Amino acid sequence: SILDNLSELHPADIAELFRELDLEEAKYLYLLADDETAADVITELEEDERKRFLDSLPSEVIAKRFIDKMESDDAADVLGEMDDDRQQEVLSHMDDIKSAGDIADLLSYDEDTAGGLMAKEFIKVKESWNLTTCLRSMRRQGEEMDEVYYVYVVDNDGILKGTLSLKRLLLSPIHKTVKDIYNDDLISVRTDVPAEEVSAIMEKYDLVALPVIDSINRLVGRITIDDVVDFIREEAEKDYQLASGITDDVETSDRVWVHTRARMPWLIIGMIGGVLSSRVVSGFVNLMETHPELSFFMGLIAAMGGNIGMQSSAIIVQSLASGSMGLDTTWGKLFKELGIAFINATILSAIILGYNLIIGENLALTYTVSIALFSVVVFASLFGTFIPLLMKRMNIDPAVATGPFVTTLNDIIGMFLYLTIATICYNILI
Amino acid sequence: SILDNLSELHPADIAELFRELDLEEAKYLYLLADDETAADVITELEEDERKRFLDSLPSEVIAKRFIDKMESDDAADVLGEMDDDRQQEVLSHMDDIKSAGDIADLLSYDEDTAGGLMAKEFIKVKESWNLTTCLRSMRRQGEEMDEVYYVYVVDNDGILKGTLSLKRLLLSPIHKTVKDIYNDDLISVRTDVPAEEVSAIMEKYDLVALPVIDSINRLVGRITIDDVVDFIREEAEKDYQLASGITDDVETSDRVWVHTRARMPWLIIGMIGGVLSSRVVSGFVNLMETHPELSFFMGLIAAMGGNIGMQSSAIIVQSLASGSMGLDTTWGKLFKELGIAFINATILSAIILGYNLIIGENLALTYTVSIALFSVVVFASLFGTFIPLLMKRMNIDPAVATGPFVTTLNDIIGMFLYLTIATICYNILI
Ligand SMILES: [Mg+2]
Ligand SMILES: [Mg+2]
Ligand SMILES: [Mg+2]
Ligand SMILES: [Mg+2]
Ligand SMILES: [Mg+2]
Ligand SMILES: [Mg+2]
Ligand SMILES: [Mg+2]
Ligand SMILES: [Mg+2]
Ligand SMILES: [Mg+2]
Ligand SMILES: [Mg+2]
Ligand SMILES: [Mg+2]
Ligand SMILES: [Mg+2]
Ligand SMILES: [Mg+2]
Repeated sequence: SILDNLSELHPADIAELFRELDLEEAKYLYLLADDETAADVITELEEDERKRFLDSLPSEVIAKRFIDKMESDDAADVLGEMDDDRQQEVLSHMDDIKSAGDIADLLSYDEDTAGGLMAKEFIKVKESWNLTTCLRSMRRQGEEMDEVYYVYVVDNDGILKGTLSLKRLLLSPIHKTVKDIYNDDLISVRTDVPAEEVSAIMEKYDLVALPVIDSINRLVGRITIDDVVDFIREEAEKDYQLASGITDDVETSDRVWVHTRARMPWLIIGMIGGVLSSRVVSGFVNLMETHPELSFFMGLIAAMGGNIGMQSSAIIVQSLASGSMGLDTTWGKLFKELGIAFINATILSAIILGYNLIIGENLALTYTVSIALFSVVVFASLFGTFIPLLMKRMNIDPAVATGPFVTTLNDIIGMFLYLTIATICYNILI
Repeated sequence: SILDNLSELHPADIAELFRELDLEEAKYLYLLADDETAADVITELEEDERKRFLDSLPSEVIAKRFIDKMESDDAADVLGEMDDDRQQEVLSHMDDIKSAGDIADLLSYDEDTAGGLMAKEFIKVKESWNLTTCLRSMRRQGEEMDEVYYVYVVDNDGILKGTLSLKRLLLSPIHKTVKDIYNDDLISVRTDVPAEEVSAIMEKYDLVALPVIDSINRLVGRITIDDVVDFIREEAEKDYQLASGITDDVETSDRVWVHTRARMPWLIIGMIGGVLSSRVVSGFVNLMETHPELSFFMGLIAAMGGNIGMQSSAIIVQSLASGSMGLDTTWGKLFKELGIAFINATILSAIILGYNLIIGENLALTYTVSIALFSVVVFASLFGTFIPLLMKRMNIDPAVATGPFVTTLNDIIGMFLYLTIATICYNILI
């Protein structure tokens, strides 16, 4: 049966199996796995699956069978999902006092900072050691660690001085000292550096691990690339959903009401925009009555305003996020976007002009639609560019707030422009 | 001056400086950098910056000063940006015939596969070796490599048998043989595995390097996590832009016409939707003439259809991309989305009903708007869910094709539903 092969499977694969089981089966499964594997499986589960499983277990079991066997960063993440009382209870049942202390320490950092990403498992060696001492110490420190790619070099006060790659160590003659061979081009971060910056640094310098220091440069932890990859993935999914008008991180497997709650804010804001635009249109009710053909293109104007605004804001939100704005100023951005907008506006309104001339729509409507489309494209582009820049300046995350604002503004301005231009065109031409 | 400190800077930082220079300054700068650094800087540049710079240099200089000093994967990527003749010319000028062969080999793989991501720099050791022989061979093989985290264990035919971590090697007694200590839980990929799958595997198993094998299991390369992180980042940016209606990967710094070209396809499709919806509305011109107040809410109906469709399709596109659909069937998805749609539709149409009753809009319009909004929300959700699933089944990338189709369909169906419902309501109530 599958249970015989359990020890052959990778914890990440067992976690996938786990997902298909009910609570009783899952408990049975974890009794069969060895402690190290069971702890790894718990780490790999999704937050809600883990919560459901751990809630049914006593604190002592959680402490001794799971938390004690996890790496400190994973242990802190799992404990961080529990309420404070439960955290204390679990920590108090841990056998290893030193790692309980490490975990309590990690729990104090904000999740989205270097402190929240780091783990306490790292190997540190002293500058002054010779390689024999260094290797002996590494053997002791490294025993319980899964993988080691670098060891960190510190001075007698614990201040980080540099890194020593295992490759360098392996390929150096044994009579050297650490000082002779370590790399002092130090790339490190303080505990309070935001996770975005951590990932930018690791991406830029192609690092698999990054040392973390405290305010007086003492080595306090290390961040590994696998956790940063998870962070990058989660952020990307969140931003994708925000761009699509979904405010919370949801998955298809989430419950119906979770989805409703995540989608409603944007929809309500969109509705407010729609209601305000209905007020604008009602101001032109006489025009609509005499020229009902104006209604033909209201959908087109509304939709195009929405599409254009979304495109412009996506480009800006993304370049703000990646910090790739370069040296361009806000005015430079707006000016460039204006250039793009004019080209797009010209092409689109020429097409619709041709179309309306060919189907023989009346001239007033023909001109109205083309001029209005031109204006809507230009305005929607400008709002789409300006609003994220404004958000950024107000220290609001542009990814969160841009969509609803741009959409709402465009809905209202679009209708206003269309009907104002109609009033003028119909006055002149009829 | 900054040039004195050039050797102190990381190539990724020099690449950033480079960006601010004109062509002559850039050439001067690279003359000052040592070869290794200059090659790394070239690798770090954006594709268009690199192209501009390399186009101005003779093939021999490119071969000897840059390509020869790069890791094979980067060399292949850089050469892959040139046309075939230039590639041949550069390769023919390389001093190191073996690495020219490696690069030519790498050039034969599709960019978005394991073969396209892998490099030829890896250390392989034989199962049967003792650790002294192993270390001696590693020293020779590893000389030119930046970082090594694993060595790969092969048999006499070059078939990949397993991996040996440097940590394990360092902490093992020297009298052992490779066979005693290597890890035979083999995670590897074939050269033709898609890059998405490569990144999913490395993410799932938290790997920093992944060996690549050919069709008869011989080790032919290795993929490192830094290149996979770059791939993940690029894919995420592309998907974000696609979700926002931008078809090509563009950055704020790109030229105006690049932006125009990237945005136009979506806009044209949106316009076609708008034009078709104008045909629908014109079919109801008599209704619009007698009841011009129907025009008030056309913008709202159009915008809400767009928003809902985008939300529904984003969730599906994302779960298709991450493979997290679980065991749910297509019908299961549609059924669930229908549940979410009914709740959202009820809430939204109740709100607009309350609003219209309070401002004392006529009853026929009041009911029309609420019933139409309800229907549009339900239909837009279903299309938003169904279309990406259909695309997937037709082997079209849902991320690319979903947006335009959903938008266009919603624009047309929205107007048709609104005015059909209006005809019925006005017939009954007036
Ligand atoms: Mg472990
Ligand atoms: Mg954490
Ligand atoms: Mg990188
Ligand atoms: Mg790189
Ligand atoms: Mg970790
Ligand atoms: Mg973000
Ligand atoms: Mg290099
Ligand atoms: Mg490649
Ligand atoms: Mg992972
Ligand atoms: Mg992990
Ligand atoms: Mg590489
Ligand atoms: Mg994709
Ligand atoms: Mg829209």
